[in-house]
Amino acid sequence: MQTELSKRLGVEYAVFGFTPFPAVAAAISRAGGLGVLGAVRYTAPDDLARDLDWIEAHADGRPYGLDVVMPAKKVEGATEADVEAMIPEGHRRFVTETLARYGVPELAPGEAAGWRITGWMEQVARSQLDVALDHPIRLLANALGSPPADVIARAHERGVLVAALAGSARHARKHQEAGIDIVVAQGYEAGGHTGDIASMVLTPEVVEAVDPLPVLAAGGIGSGPQVAAAFSLGAQGVWLGSVWLTTTEADLHSPALTRKLLAAGSGDTVRSRALTGKPARQLRTEWTEAWDDADGPGTLPMPLQGLLVAEAVSRIQKYEVDPLLGTPVGQIVGRMNSERSVQAVFDDLTRGFERAVDRVNRIAGRSAR
Amino acid sequence: MQTELSKRLGVEYAVFGFTPFPAVAAAISRAGGLGVLGAVRYTAPDDLARDLDWIEAHADGRPYGLDVVMPAKKVEGATEADVEAMIPEGHRRFVTETLARYGVPELAPGEAAGWRITGWMEQVARSQLDVALDHPIRLLANALGSPPADVIARAHERGVLVAALAGSARHARKHQEAGIDIVVAQGYEAGGHTGDIASMVLTPEVVEAVDPLPVLAAGGIGSGPQVAAAFSLGAQGVWLGSVWLTTTEADLHSPALTRKLLAAGSGDTVRSRALTGKPARQLRTEWTEAWDDADGPGTLPMPLQGLLVAEAVSRIQKYEVDPLLGTPVGQIVGRMNSERSVQAVFDDLTRGFERAVDRVNRIAGRSAR
Repeated sequence: MQTELSKRLGVEYAVFGFTPFPAVAAAISRAGGLGVLGAVRYTAPDDLARDLDWIEAHADGRPYGLDVVMPAKKVEGATEADVEAMIPEGHRRFVTETLARYGVPELAPGEAAGWRITGWMEQVARSQLDVALDHPIRLLANALGSPPADVIARAHERGVLVAALAGSARHARKHQEAGIDIVVAQGYEAGGHTGDIASMVLTPEVVEAVDPLPVLAAGGIGSGPQVAAAFSLGAQGVWLGSVWLTTTEADLHSPALTRKLLAAGSGDTVRSRALTGKPARQLRTEWTEAWDDADGPGTLPMPLQGLLVAEAVSRIQKYEVDPLLGTPVGQIVGRMNSERSVQAVFDDLTRGFERAVDRVNRIAGRSAR
Repeated sequence: MQTELSKRLGVEYAVFGFTPFPAVAAAISRAGGLGVLGAVRYTAPDDLARDLDWIEAHADGRPYGLDVVMPAKKVEGATEADVEAMIPEGHRRFVTETLARYGVPELAPGEAAGWRITGWMEQVARSQLDVALDHPIRLLANALGSPPADVIARAHERGVLVAALAGSARHARKHQEAGIDIVVAQGYEAGGHTGDIASMVLTPEVVEAVDPLPVLAAGGIGSGPQVAAAFSLGAQGVWLGSVWLTTTEADLHSPALTRKLLAAGSGDTVRSRALTGKPARQLRTEWTEAWDDADGPGTLPMPLQGLLVAEAVSRIQKYEVDPLLGTPVGQIVGRMNSERSVQAVFDDLTRGFERAVDRVNRIAGRSAR
């Protein structure tokens, strides 16, 4: 499973694995893919440095990458406190009342919310970058918009390829003009922030729009046949995020959430603004339903919504309040039905890919091997 | 491009083309696919008989099929007039006011609405069936729900394979239990009635759910790479509808609508209840926006919405009122950028398919041929 891009990056498989967990990222790289650590959960640069050191020590010398979030639009107000002040009182009341209705306990006094949204702020993303570029990362991905020109230049000076996620061909061309190296075409069915064009349509459209830039297909990919489909559509690699959430190396800190993921069907996700203020696919819960309810206050724009719900999400996760408990995940959650090692996921991907290629060759009237 | 199913049906390519136009259906069959005529526009059985005769005379002896709409739920009230009486006055007023706001002219006195929804009614569908089974059709497809047991039995007696559309694995299994022969897995990106699970996820899920029944992939397919992707995902054929709308054989009766289709991007469709009362993907217009507006009266359930808007849709189409003018179409409308013959579409599909297979073989490390 080799493309020009995978050869350039020195990976055995053109499989890019996005994950918030260092152990998963390292395991993906060890298995022959390229593990990409999501930085959005990190507030303190030292924590990120520690985890990148850990990956470096556990990746067997294989390449890995980092995914940061630099919003295209800056928010006025330099500090988190300034941004907090922009949140309407009615929305805070809605959070309090909804949590009370489900009996969600409060955090202990002085206990910090374990999950903050500060990673969305540009200054935080820049301090993460400084840390990342001190490590031998091979790929820097940006989840929202093109990275600033100086960031791209600094990455290129260090031989780091820069990727950016796009939900439309127009969006992808803007990235190309900004000078990035790889476009991740993120389809409607993907977990997390995503547009409304499905991978089957989006992937070839983006491939044509940014040719000859390499495109990774994201959204709806968790099995070998889906990998083969993405390559059929012109992708030079696949970008998988959801499938790792139920690996044994993942550390969700919530057996209840793992159970929900294993039980969920492909129809049990929703594209909702509840988590960050931009549409992001996640498990459908009574929490997302409350925000998407026409009778509720509705969501706030990014990054206000994320700040508004950060503590609530921490409380829901800590106390595993089942009807409200969710996570970003794509429609492939329907086939995430058992806990497996990252290596087992890779074995399934590569075997399933070979079988799908055999099938297509038979249909095309070519010899299977 | 041969599968067990295409061999069983005696077609050269495992490409199924759904179309409301007899000339397109015949051209698809002549080109080596299986043309499937949509019956929903026909009110009088004689009209359908005439058009099936025409296809029979122009298909060069190749197989063709028919697509009917038998709603799973029957509506109380046997006649169209009874159903009409269930429509609230406020909704009728909204139609009148919206048309007036855009200056849509009325039809001439006595001029019948050219587009009725009577095809949705079970008794109409049954009279269509009688006509169809008098013709040598090879495939009978039902767009909503499983056909009744006696219909399946009658089709099987005549050697006609029965297909049914499904938007979820659960839905597909119900069809299988009803005794149908082929499931059409219709993804979110498809034109017309569709669920919210994208083809990349839905196709393999349905393939696994109804194994060993053959599955056709529908939604997001209009090019060779998309055909190859569908086969990678386990489909035994592809079901294309949108791509034929801008063929030279299609008879949209509206140059303005053809222009809109040629100009539209993949992001210019919406899944709306405006047309029939069930979510159907179509061009986004000021008409769909009016129905989807939270401040409007909202849509009525099927078949009321279709009856409510039938005359309005006729008026909008007849007078080509541009901001309101739309049609069901999938997200692949973004690549429908020129008028081509059905044969040219086939040539593009088959050549693009071969190139996609070459690409995947290279990535898999196999010789290209």
